Amino acid sequence: MARTGRRPGTTRTREAILRAARLDFGEKGYDGASVRGIARRAGVDPALVHHYFGTKDRVFIAAMEIPYDPGEMLERIMLDPEHDPAETVVRLFLRVWGDEHDRAPFLALLRSAMTSERAADVLRGFMTDILAKRIAPRIGVEPLRAGLIASQLFGMVLVRYIIRAEPLASADPEEVVTHYAPAVRLVMGLSERKRH
Amino acid sequence: MARTGRRPGTTRTREAILRAARLDFGEKGYDGASVRGIARRAGVDPALVHHYFGTKDRVFIAAMEIPYDPGEMLERIMLDPEHDPAETVVRLFLRVWGDEHDRAPFLALLRSAMTSERAADVLRGFMTDILAKRIAPRIGVEPLRAGLIASQLFGMVLVRYIIRAEPLASADPEEVVTHYAPAVRLVMGLSERKRH
Repeated sequence: MARTGRRPGTTRTREAILRAARLDFGEKGYDGASVRGIARRAGVDPALVHHYFGTKDRVFIAAMEIPYDPGEMLERIMLDPEHDPAETVVRLFLRVWGDEHDRAPFLALLRSAMTSERAADVLRGFMTDILAKRIAPRIGVEPLRAGLIASQLFGMVLVRYIIRAEPLASADPEEVVTHYAPAVRLVMGLSERKRH
Repeated sequence: MARTGRRPGTTRTREAILRAARLDFGEKGYDGASVRGIARRAGVDPALVHHYFGTKDRVFIAAMEIPYDPGEMLERIMLDPEHDPAETVVRLFLRVWGDEHDRAPFLALLRSAMTSERAADVLRGFMTDILAKRIAPRIGVEPLRAGLIASQLFGMVLVRYIIRAEPLASADPEEVVTHYAPAVRLVMGLSERKRH
């Protein structure tokens, strides 16, 4: 939908609903969240949520729209000759997940995917169709390896920010980078040219 | 313990203790829970809890329905001179999680930890108090590294068995071992003596 045709009030309401949805899905997972709960949190009538998005399913998909293209970002990281891509990607995950606001859509997606088939579909679709088939070949990483790198990164945020197990939960981000990036680099399976 | 030798009253008492333990560990986490508290909640004498389970550790394992002591198993894996510990542990996770029945208690624990603070407490307690503080030093792995190995393994089962993203979801287990074990071994940070 083009932004130009939307009145300011409409956009604000829509954004408020999406922000509320990210929080609601993040806290309760897909099954626990509800259109009514999202509407209450956004301070709007549930009918308005239905008006903008239709079903809970559609609110979820809209709320999960990441405000940037992960493919472009990964391509930039992998092709940057100045920085080690494994360190950059581990540092990026730690920075985004270390910020309560920035991690909200990702936390919502991951949490929901754990308990709801519908939400798992969304994440599976992204990983299978976009990460493995489109992004991986473009950045020169085998699709299976891309899935295993995603495993390392999802696992790290799971243990550090969701389970919050010590000492990982309180470890200095740079200490985590030091210990973890070499393992991510190894799974990348890049030629020596890419290694530092 | 063989089921045949157990009187009905014994089974009922044992089950009552396990139910109480799940609640106690759930509410207070591993450190906060106690054999005495569990006994009180189950309406039995603490001596009976010791009689059936021995230590708090064993009550926890029984309550989580894990059919073996992960500490003992990890110790055996790490000290086995015949096999590479990283390969063994990746293969073990793939085997257990590849079986619908065997993965049930772990899936329940991981899934509930994603959406429930109480369940997250249980997993956090296990990882912080048992894995990092007790098991890690015994197997010669730094606690932070143990947390990062857990990240790698949890992440792998998350992407392969819960999100089921391709091509990882359908990959041959041995192919996964080949690509992933070296990264797990690297995070273990063992001396050359342990490497193959």
